[in-house]
Amino acid sequence: MKILLIGAGGTIGTVVHKTLAGRGHDVLSVGRTSGDLRFDFTDPEQVAALYAAAGPVDAVVGAAGGVPFKPLDQLTADDFRTGFHNKVLSQVELVRQGVRHVAERGSFTLITGVLAREPIVTGTVASLVNGAIESFVMAAAVEIAPQRVNAVSPSVVTEDLPKYDRFFPGMPSHDLAAVARAYVRSVEGAQTGQVLVP
Amino acid sequence: MKILLIGAGGTIGTVVHKTLAGRGHDVLSVGRTSGDLRFDFTDPEQVAALYAAAGPVDAVVGAAGGVPFKPLDQLTADDFRTGFHNKVLSQVELVRQGVRHVAERGSFTLITGVLAREPIVTGTVASLVNGAIESFVMAAAVEIAPQRVNAVSPSVVTEDLPKYDRFFPGMPSHDLAAVARAYVRSVEGAQTGQVLVP
Repeated sequence: MKILLIGAGGTIGTVVHKTLAGRGHDVLSVGRTSGDLRFDFTDPEQVAALYAAAGPVDAVVGAAGGVPFKPLDQLTADDFRTGFHNKVLSQVELVRQGVRHVAERGSFTLITGVLAREPIVTGTVASLVNGAIESFVMAAAVEIAPQRVNAVSPSVVTEDLPKYDRFFPGMPSHDLAAVARAYVRSVEGAQTGQVLVP
Repeated sequence: MKILLIGAGGTIGTVVHKTLAGRGHDVLSVGRTSGDLRFDFTDPEQVAALYAAAGPVDAVVGAAGGVPFKPLDQLTADDFRTGFHNKVLSQVELVRQGVRHVAERGSFTLITGVLAREPIVTGTVASLVNGAIESFVMAAAVEIAPQRVNAVSPSVVTEDLPKYDRFFPGMPSHDLAAVARAYVRSVEGAQTGQVLVP
């Protein structure tokens, strides 16, 4: 398949890239400052330009979307706007604009995360945006069929535990290889509207 | 208790108002164009003015937040921004700014809806914003304790079935009286971080 991978330069994106390419797919990597195509997918106009540049694809895979982490009493209204803009609207636009560019039985795979269902201190914006993505995926799936849309929900990545363990105390971690397998499950599988836990 | 009720003039707000007042609470109603206090709670600056005008309260109850309903292929990026602004950021600001005005063991009760978990055609924005609210409530609860925050999740309201049944085919409906009881459960109960289904 020809696969558009957004956030290809990140920790997860790098492993997803390698895994999908290793399975014989033709992966077009997209990033702000690196990759085959250079676009900022948090800007809806650049999403349009990205699809125009990429041409028809079989799958779109998202592995990007940073959000602010702060205690609730330090968060501002703008932090919530930023989280929505960077991780929700950006991925919504990948789907909303993408339906015209993706194959009839093609798929979208977005990224969410464990904080949609597990709270951590400083994680309010992340929880909110992940909850938004998960309900969006469920809702969009029924309208775009036979195209498909799922979201991969990693926990803290095992390889990142030395840095992040104290923020996710006692939470099961996910190896990057398992996270990449969840992307494969969405891209090559048949399910839609699902939140895939690695 | 002294309770600030936002959206007091709506279908649900009217019954919630009557129910809470009937249980002996002192309800301050808030609306754009009607109520004891006139503010547009979708504007973060007006939320600040609202809290300044209301003085200390024991509970804040939200029953407002309209979002666009359209097939996905007719939605624009702005429709998603509008939904986020009207129902998510507005209710987030009630909590974020409200923690300084609500009693130490006071509560916030927001409104979400069945579309967070059940898809309907034209409901993508509603699903997305409701999913955001539900994960926000879970996450904010752990940071604002001993203050509490929950969300009430009505399905289509039984009294509205003549108008809306065709959009919610076969979904169980909720009587307005049951929806109001869910608000009571949040305001007078002890739970926090929960999605309360009537």
